[in-house]
Amino acid sequence: MTTVNAWAAQEAGGKLEPFTYELGQRGASEVDIAVEYCGLCHSDLSLINNDWGNAQYPLVPGHEVVGRIEAVGDGVEHLQVGQRVGLGWNASSCMHCQQCMSGDHNLCSQQQGTIVGRHGGFADRVRCSAEWAIPIPDALDPKAVGPMFCGGITVFNPITQLGIKPTDRVGVIGIGGLGHLAIQFLAAWGCEVTAFSSTADKESQAREMGAHHFITSSDPKALKAVRGRFDAIINTTNVELNWDAYIAALAPRGTLHTVGAVLGAFGPSNGFMLIGGQKSVSGSPLGSPATTATMLDFAARHDVAAQIEVFPMSEVNAALDHLKAGKARYRVVLQAGH
Amino acid sequence: MTTVNAWAAQEAGGKLEPFTYELGQRGASEVDIAVEYCGLCHSDLSLINNDWGNAQYPLVPGHEVVGRIEAVGDGVEHLQVGQRVGLGWNASSCMHCQQCMSGDHNLCSQQQGTIVGRHGGFADRVRCSAEWAIPIPDALDPKAVGPMFCGGITVFNPITQLGIKPTDRVGVIGIGGLGHLAIQFLAAWGCEVTAFSSTADKESQAREMGAHHFITSSDPKALKAVRGRFDAIINTTNVELNWDAYIAALAPRGTLHTVGAVLGAFGPSNGFMLIGGQKSVSGSPLGSPATTATMLDFAARHDVAAQIEVFPMSEVNAALDHLKAGKARYRVVLQAGH
Repeated sequence: MTTVNAWAAQEAGGKLEPFTYELGQRGASEVDIAVEYCGLCHSDLSLINNDWGNAQYPLVPGHEVVGRIEAVGDGVEHLQVGQRVGLGWNASSCMHCQQCMSGDHNLCSQQQGTIVGRHGGFADRVRCSAEWAIPIPDALDPKAVGPMFCGGITVFNPITQLGIKPTDRVGVIGIGGLGHLAIQFLAAWGCEVTAFSSTADKESQAREMGAHHFITSSDPKALKAVRGRFDAIINTTNVELNWDAYIAALAPRGTLHTVGAVLGAFGPSNGFMLIGGQKSVSGSPLGSPATTATMLDFAARHDVAAQIEVFPMSEVNAALDHLKAGKARYRVVLQAGH
Repeated sequence: MTTVNAWAAQEAGGKLEPFTYELGQRGASEVDIAVEYCGLCHSDLSLINNDWGNAQYPLVPGHEVVGRIEAVGDGVEHLQVGQRVGLGWNASSCMHCQQCMSGDHNLCSQQQGTIVGRHGGFADRVRCSAEWAIPIPDALDPKAVGPMFCGGITVFNPITQLGIKPTDRVGVIGIGGLGHLAIQFLAAWGCEVTAFSSTADKESQAREMGAHHFITSSDPKALKAVRGRFDAIINTTNVELNWDAYIAALAPRGTLHTVGAVLGAFGPSNGFMLIGGQKSVSGSPLGSPATTATMLDFAARHDVAAQIEVFPMSEVNAALDHLKAGKARYRVVLQAGH
């Protein structure tokens, strides 16, 4: 038996408290990871609060894990004990459906979330299926790489899936944990990058990250001035915005793409708005294991990294309060063993 | 001066009456077409009724023209007098913008519609820019080919633009003027084709056109039974349907695509619905001249043809009443000179 010392919410909206549980028999294709760092994502908050109605308590959040392989199942040959890996939103997929067999493990209908019906990385160890434990290149700072496994891959994935080209003009809505990585990735990708933020004082930081233009999204005139401009606009927020204005800002063939978990309607108020310019609205989840590995390689080569604030894991509740208050600049990371 | 004998509405919703006008000086890049046949499209009705707020009266409808080149401008070298051509929704594009220069003349922001601020094909002749007069292969029946230039290209264009593959499962919503051509094109393309119709008694006809499956769309259970099935669903209707149910029926990476001029909202009631399966909702207009030519070649090779009912042009008002009553099976064509 392997004991896990974790932090858990015992009820919706509850503070995190120390929680101990036993890992059962390790499956042949599973690995255990000794946690070094774990990023804090807005989705952890959504689960703690049961915003999506799928939380199970006690709930151990944490799905931006960095750590070292501590033990491997009998069938795992490609990962070694001691190897540094990351674990993100997904912890398991069926490995045999049409999606898994096509490399789209992230679209597997049987996939299990790291913190949905399982216990996550706010702990000293965490278990997952081996395919979702992604080796981390030595060139990447282990302290800062955790957020890549959720925030990073969430915005890198659509760049690959939408076929975004270095010649494209791309907008990013929301300059937070996801948005600040999207700007860096798109700038490294070679795109003309425009940051949309309701917070005007983020402009200089957005430009430092690589944004060529900054638009204060609360100004309707500013949005009108860029009608027909963007090949893609990636929304990283989870609020209902004036989608019509963003769709109007798309160039012909453009797409308004959400990775933010918008709970309200998402699309034009009038179907006509998509027809004339052959436009679309779209969405995507986290990327596949292969896309995640590609992202890490790209990030290492282009010095793309999350800007982080490190809290000891023992101060996880203070870290959550910091995030709730909208003060995170731009991603909070918890350090295990402290 | 060249006189045109046409049929025009003098006001919104008005009956069509004989109307004569003069064509002015022919531009160097323009051609005049002596009309032989002209299809009747639901968009003609929308313009007559000014449903879209862009009608100008007197309004000569007709944008599914088949005829012979009667005269060409000084700069037109690739079309000869006497050659049979078709003219669809678009009559002119700027020929120099990024879209035109990329072959996407149908996405040109300066494009002119054949019946929007111009006079259309319910007439003995009609003028257009040469690029939109598309030569008709001899193998195609001139009487039936008119509907290809609006109804046909409207549904053929997304097959090419969405990258639909012969291995895909594709749904078609609405079995009318557009839908009956979509089914034929998709069957010829090699796809598994499912027809969605609120009219159960269209099943046998849909199957004759090439549909492998038929779903009565007014039955919510029938829609639930095909959850996760379709790579693409093409909506040919202009009414607001239960989009969530169709989005749920998409397979991972699937798109719900409208070519029908839906005036209400088009998209999911919840952005989440697009994220998990990496889905999209999209739209497209008529295809480019090059895509139209490709379509005609494909139609000739695969015997794809509109099922038509022919009215003499002098009975255009009776033809319009027939369409309004929902009785057209499946496309009405007017024969000029009768």
